[in-house]
This record gives sequence, structure tokens and C-alpha cells, in this order.
Amino acid sequence: MIDRRQILVAPLAPLAAQPQAELRAAMIGVGNRGSYTMRSVMQVPGVRVAAVCDIKPDRLDKAASAAAAHSPKTYTDYRQVLAQKDIDAVHISTPCDLHVEMAIAALQAGKHVYLEKPAGIDAESIGRLVDVAKSSRKVFLIGQQLRSHTRMRAVISKIHEGLIGKVVMIKAQRHSADDLAHDGPSADWFFDAKRSGDVIVEMSVHNLDVCNWIASSRPERAAGFGGALVWPNDPPGRTNMDGYTLSYEYENGVKLSYTQVFFHARGMPGSGQYWYVYGTEGSVDLDKAMYYPRSRDKQPMEIVPPTEEKLDAQHIGAFYDCVTKGAKNPADINVAAVGALTAILGREAIYRKKMLSWQELGARV
Amino acid sequence: MIDRRQILVAPLAPLAAQPQAELRAAMIGVGNRGSYTMRSVMQVPGVRVAAVCDIKPDRLDKAASAAAAHSPKTYTDYRQVLAQKDIDAVHISTPCDLHVEMAIAALQAGKHVYLEKPAGIDAESIGRLVDVAKSSRKVFLIGQQLRSHTRMRAVISKIHEGLIGKVVMIKAQRHSADDLAHDGPSADWFFDAKRSGDVIVEMSVHNLDVCNWIASSRPERAAGFGGALVWPNDPPGRTNMDGYTLSYEYENGVKLSYTQVFFHARGMPGSGQYWYVYGTEGSVDLDKAMYYPRSRDKQPMEIVPPTEEKLDAQHIGAFYDCVTKGAKNPADINVAAVGALTAILGREAIYRKKMLSWQELGARV
Repeated sequence: MIDRRQILVAPLAPLAAQPQAELRAAMIGVGNRGSYTMRSVMQVPGVRVAAVCDIKPDRLDKAASAAAAHSPKTYTDYRQVLAQKDIDAVHISTPCDLHVEMAIAALQAGKHVYLEKPAGIDAESIGRLVDVAKSSRKVFLIGQQLRSHTRMRAVISKIHEGLIGKVVMIKAQRHSADDLAHDGPSADWFFDAKRSGDVIVEMSVHNLDVCNWIASSRPERAAGFGGALVWPNDPPGRTNMDGYTLSYEYENGVKLSYTQVFFHARGMPGSGQYWYVYGTEGSVDLDKAMYYPRSRDKQPMEIVPPTEEKLDAQHIGAFYDCVTKGAKNPADINVAAVGALTAILGREAIYRKKMLSWQELGARV
Repeated sequence: MIDRRQILVAPLAPLAAQPQAELRAAMIGVGNRGSYTMRSVMQVPGVRVAAVCDIKPDRLDKAASAAAAHSPKTYTDYRQVLAQKDIDAVHISTPCDLHVEMAIAALQAGKHVYLEKPAGIDAESIGRLVDVAKSSRKVFLIGQQLRSHTRMRAVISKIHEGLIGKVVMIKAQRHSADDLAHDGPSADWFFDAKRSGDVIVEMSVHNLDVCNWIASSRPERAAGFGGALVWPNDPPGRTNMDGYTLSYEYENGVKLSYTQVFFHARGMPGSGQYWYVYGTEGSVDLDKAMYYPRSRDKQPMEIVPPTEEKLDAQHIGAFYDCVTKGAKNPADINVAAVGALTAILGREAIYRKKMLSWQELGARV
């Protein structure tokens, strides 16, 4: 019940938004991903893209032109960006093997950090990032942007409220009909698992993070098989997998079946991404926001109507809400580290051909 | 090229079928399954159901009535059936834990054996059955009846001929919306994993056998997780699982993702059974007999038009073709043993929470 007197005595909202103190952001890495998210950063009210940084001159020039309205300085060395005192926040969109080093340096330089996923590609260095992020007073937010997906948030809230009873199992996948372009903008590092962390860490961290979110837990162990099955050594030197199958068991007992393949031929049913969530009282098709009850007395229903999502804008907006308003961080260092470590656990289980536990992985979070 | 002279000198086919020597069959176990297949046995030309056997008097009476046209003798002890000299073939449709013992005894008594799946529920006893069946001159055929599925045979032949290049991975499942009836005709043994071998052995042996068939290989190792997730101890004393996720790796490198759940709520997409087969040049949806090429220059196509399958009749017919005509056995002791052992490997990997190898299982075939 709203107390009417409280409304009467509450201050009136200002008719026009207050002018905000300008926040100065730097884009570190303006390749495929960074140049794309920069457009969303530029649209956040009160935020100015004050610096862009890339080791590739052509990309740097292109980004500087695209951000011309904000007159950014340009850099080729990210350390010089961090040394620039008036930079408040950095967006790190570099190859995965550089994430930990750059994020730690940025936090230690007193910057707020929006780090593209994954947090890192090995357990040891992620542990170091966790230590730094947890002891920092700056905002650290990971680009696991499904955490800002309005509809997904609503559906998972309903699951957590008990819509389908206790969650016991999840079946999820990420299937596509083609390998990543062998001559695409990230081809110089993507196919090298030592740089990308392999496809499970580079891409499926999104999907697995959603599983962690649904399960409200973290994996205890994992096992599975995979490899470069259709494109071995193609492109030459490739160490990324192109297909794998994994099973996980969570600390709270939830089971997860997960596959990722790049060779689910066009047109065959059962492709794409999904999360089927199985509970003791029913199931949820997360992607379609549909609830299916176990009881024959109840009817399936759409949990939330379709929403128009602008994921980048929403997630970057959430970051600046944390910076300026102390809002709750939807993708903090725990989400980041557990997400990446879940993917790394699966990868290492496959590489080592054994059932691997969270503990054996040396995961620290 | 057909040589016309050969046709001219070939003997003419008889206008009417030759009267066949009568084959005398015995049904051992006429519960839910045995009473059903008996109808198909009775329809095989030249086969008479000469004996029915069950430890439950009501079932025995019912089966004797249903087979009245064949005037079968009735038995409660299967050993007495085997002692009946004029029985040529036996159909064993008893709870799974009795399969090995009865099949061995029947072969040793000189009977042809049609054994319902699974061949057995533990590696050691299956090894004994393998020894006996391989040294017997009688026909042994396992009720893995998908091996007689006309359309499936045609599609898998095409896969083996190279339709999709080299097979690298299979994704298969068996999902349903409900647990087996807790008061159904098999409820007194089905939920006891020590009698049924658990659901993976009792039911998914069909699905996993098809995977073995597609892969033209057998598993080298497996790992996964599962349990009685939605119905723990329900019915009371239950030791069967109701859901699990598994990954297999075959000797020839093929990977398999497999799940079985009884709690995929009604109406949610992605339920039922499927086998998605991934090759280096395309994919096949086995259940729909659809081929999807990788190349954009080719079109998806239906490999074989839909067929009307009478699986029981076809598979039982194949058995009697082996007995009377020396036809090639589509479901011999190798198919039987490898199928059951594949399921047992998965089950034991789940029970022991470790990656388990074919060798560690002590599988002998």
C-alpha cells in the first residue's frame, strides 16, 4: 500500500533531466567487437568516448572517425590509456588471452572496467583477477550481456520463484551450420585455442553462464568429448574444436547436457540455441519464455510477452548505472569468473579425457 | 546385366507356396510384452505356438486363450518348456535379469532363441551368453527390432555409403512427459534397477544400438550424470533413474551426446526420440529420413519415402527367415551384446561418477 502522505511530501521530479557530470570512457580494442559496442557507449547520456586504442592502425583510424563527435585521443598502447588520469572507465574488447592482464591493470589504475567475455581463459589467471576485482572499489562488469536480457531475466526470476518446482536438469546447446569465417576479422587469433580459450570459452561462456544462472549454483564436475571434427587443421594451425558434447553436475545436484557444433547442416531441425529447463513440476523453454506444466490440469503459458532487446545498449547502460548510481551489478566478478571457469572446466575435461572437478581445476572464486 | 538365357533355363517358381514343415515355438513370459509379440509369432506362416509359459497363472490363462487356435501346452517352469523335445524355437520375454540365464539354457537345450532386449544387465553374464551363442549352431536373435526397420535400414545404408561424408558426431535422445506407470504391468520389477538394468539398459538400448549401428563402431568410453531426479523413491524402493545425460566416444572417434528423461513436459518442443547424425559433408535426421547437405549447391532431400512399418512382425519374420532359410541375422549376438554393453557402460559411468572405458567394464564380445 502506498501511503498518500508520503507522495504529497516527496520532492517533485525535475521537469528536465539534471545535467550529469561527464564520464570519460576509453575503448581498448576496436576490432570487430569493440567498434560495434563503441556505438552503444557513445549513446549513453553523459558518457564521452575520450580515447580509443588498438594495435592495428587501420582499425584505430576507423574507430577515431566513427567517434569523431566525441573527439577521442588515439593510442596504440593500452598502458598509455590507463595512465591518462581523466579516463573514468575502460571497455576492453581485445583477444581473450589479454583480458586478465588488461582488466587487472585497469582496475589498479583506478578505472571502472567493462570487460568483454570471457573473464579469462585459464583458472590461475582468473583467480588473480578475482582477487584484484574483489579488493577494488571500482565497478567491474563482464560482457555476459544475456544477464541484461529483459525477457530472460523475467523468466529466470519466475523459475527461481518456483514456477516449475525444483530445477533438476537443463538441456542446452549452441549449434550453427558453419564454422566461423576462416578469413574473418578475428581469424588471426580465434582459431588458436591458446588465444581464444577455444570455442567453449570464447562463445559458449554466454550459454553456460545462463545455465549457472538458472541453476543458482556452480558446476562440481564435468566430462565429455570433442575436437576439430570436421575442420581439423583448417585453417592451418587450428587448435579450436568445432564440436563437442559435455555433461555437468552442479553443486546443488542439477544436471546439464550441453553441446556446441558448427556443423549442424542448414535446415535440419534442432539447430540454434536453446535452454530446456526441467523442474519437478514442469518445464520451461527459456528462449521462447514458455512454461509447460507437468499437471494435466494446468495449461502451457507464455511467461513474458516478447520484448525488443537492445542487448549491448542495455548491458552497457547497466554498467554506467553501476558507475553513476551504485546500481546492483548484474554481471559482477563472480558471474564473470564462474562463467569462464564453467567453460574452462568443460574444455579441460575434454582435453584431458577425464571427469574433472571444480577443485581439480584449481578454480578460485 | 541380366543374361536372358539364364532366365530361360531357370526353374519356374511354384504357383502355390510349398507346404512348409511346421516349426513349433514356445513363448516364455507372456506378460505385457510376450503376450503382444505372440500375436505376431502366430501369424508367421508355418509357425505354431506350441507352448506358453509364465509364473503368473492369470497371464498364462489369458495367453493360452489368445493362442487357442494353436492349442499350446501351458507351463509355469521354463525348464520344462526347454525339456520338451519338439519345441524348435523360444521367445523369451521375461524381466531383464532373467534373460541371460534363460537364453543360455535354451541354446544349450538346442532351441533357436528370440530374446527380448536387453541381452543382459551386467557385463560378466553377457560375456557368458556371448560364449554360448557363438559356439551354438542355433539362431540367436535379439529383439532390438529397429534393426528390422525398413526405412531406418535404408537411411543408415546411405550414411554408410558416404552420403554425408565421414560421420563425426551423433546427437540422440529419448524424452517423454511421464514416468512409466507406477501401477503398470511391469511395475513389480521395472523400477528395480537390479532387475531391469535401469532405464538406460531396459529402454535406451534401442536408441544406443542405433547409434552403434550408425557409427559402425563401439564405444571406447563414456561419462555422464543422472539419477531419480523427479521421482526419488517413487514408487517406494525405486532404484531406476528418471533422467540422465551422457557423452560417449567411439573407437573410431565418433562422439555421441545422449539424454533420456521422463520429465520433458507435454507440449514443450524438442521432446521424443531423434538421432541427428553429423558428417563431414552434411547431416541426417534419421527419424525423418531427411538429408541436409553442407554445400549450398545441393538441396535437402528425403532419402526414403515414409514406410508403413510393422516392427514386431518384421523382426520376428527375420528371425524365422534365419531359422528356415539361413538368412543373414540382422540382430545377432554381437549386436545384442554391444548394444547392452553400451547401455551398461553409460549406466556404470553415471553410477560410479567417473569416465569409464569399455575395457574397465570388463566387456567381452
